[in-house]
Amino acid sequence: MTDPLARLAAVIESRKPAHGGDPKASYVARLLHKGPDAFLKKIGEEATEVVMAAKDLDRGGDPAKLVGEVADLWFHCMIALAHYGLEPADVVAELQRREGLSGLEEKALRKAREREGNGE
Amino acid sequence: MTDPLARLAAVIESRKPAHGGDPKASYVARLLHKGPDAFLKKIGEEATEVVMAAKDLDRGGDPAKLVGEVADLWFHCMIALAHYGLEPADVVAELQRREGLSGLEEKALRKAREREGNGE
Amino acid sequence: MTDPLARLAAVIESRKPAHGGDPKASYVARLLHKGPDAFLKKIGEEATEVVMAAKDLDRGGDPAKLVGEVADLWFHCMIALAHYGLEPADVVAELQRREGLSGLEEKALRKAREREGNGE
Amino acid sequence: MTDPLARLAAVIESRKPAHGGDPKASYVARLLHKGPDAFLKKIGEEATEVVMAAKDLDRGGDPAKLVGEVADLWFHCMIALAHYGLEPADVVAELQRREGLSGLEEKALRKAREREGNGE
Repeated sequence: MTDPLARLAAVIESRKPAHGGDPKASYVARLLHKGPDAFLKKIGEEATEVVMAAKDLDRGGDPAKLVGEVADLWFHCMIALAHYGLEPADVVAELQRREGLSGLEEKALRKAREREGNGE
Repeated sequence: MTDPLARLAAVIESRKPAHGGDPKASYVARLLHKGPDAFLKKIGEEATEVVMAAKDLDRGGDPAKLVGEVADLWFHCMIALAHYGLEPADVVAELQRREGLSGLEEKALRKAREREGNGE
Repeated sequence: MTDPLARLAAVIESRKPAHGGDPKASYVARLLHKGPDAFLKKIGEEATEVVMAAKDLDRGGDPAKLVGEVADLWFHCMIALAHYGLEPADVVAELQRREGLSGLEEKALRKAREREGNGE
Repeated sequence: MTDPLARLAAVIESRKPAHGGDPKASYVARLLHKGPDAFLKKIGEEATEVVMAAKDLDRGGDPAKLVGEVADLWFHCMIALAHYGLEPADVVAELQRREGLSGLEEKALRKAREREGNGE
């Protein structure tokens, strides 16, 4: 398995309580053991940290900080995906499906037109 | 270029105003043209949509909805990365660096111990 | 009724579809008509805008911008409260109950100790 | 001082390091001592908890939980306001200024029209 996201997903998978993950020894096992609210809260928190790191970058902050916060955010998304039996490959496939950006931009523009339609 | 994230990043790059991206024709070009607050706000919004899709999944919602929301979140993170001259490969490298999860879990556990230390 | 929050809550209440609120004429009626995901998403978005306005303030931004974003956030919270049959008075009563901050700080410190307890 | 929000703001004010607040004894003093990123991160986290409590309420959750999470969110907003020399009264005045909702809905509708205007 050469894909880094897939390798990381496999490690997360092995941290599931059902696979012997130990909440006392592993941060991931603890989050999975606590259940959805624990890792979903982290997604909200890490998204805010991405925003703060980006704002800091606007005034001379460290690019590595932003990279680290995005990594934290994506990592906690991967924990959520694992909990629901999904994989980062599903997300990448979805991005790929929309790719050429034509599809994705079409979707975004369609959404925007819908917003216009109901005057939002 | 076979990596889907790298291909998507290349398309986003081509949407930069400096590279001829047209805010009237492209959703990505419009966000990049508007500047950081526009796409950072979307990161906060999309993170919330991930959380809502996950909560819906707890009561029989559609897994594809969660995948789509995570894709939206990662996509807007990639727009932010592009704006700051960074790439998804930087994020994946950071995740890889921490991989085996040993590093990453160590970091998370160290952070947790620090929180304990100052009584947070 | 002299309490501004209560007066605002009464206006929001009158915008409920069941009370004749018109989604075509009123922003609040439209959000209530669309249902929870519409206004909950706004809470995530407005919280992010509060964070960005605060970061801007750190480098010479406008305090009125922060006040406006907090007002937006609280306003959308009040729409959510109304949807669930709750009022800002319930929130203020809860804040008051914790007040002297003793209660509230106790709760926060207890939570922190719990986090320490399970090594988070 | 009979206004609960003003009383709470006064307590927060007294927790400022400059006013003798002790980071070791008080949760508020600790957040203020740590600086903006500490309490801004909490705003993102608490907003996510509001969203989760609301989603839970949709399937039989406890209304008091939602009230408590909104109280947490508003409380951390008040800490941010205090740090920047602002008060909840400023937010309530802003809400009041927009009140009758005419002003506020006008603003929201104007924003929506602007979004339409640039095709967002």
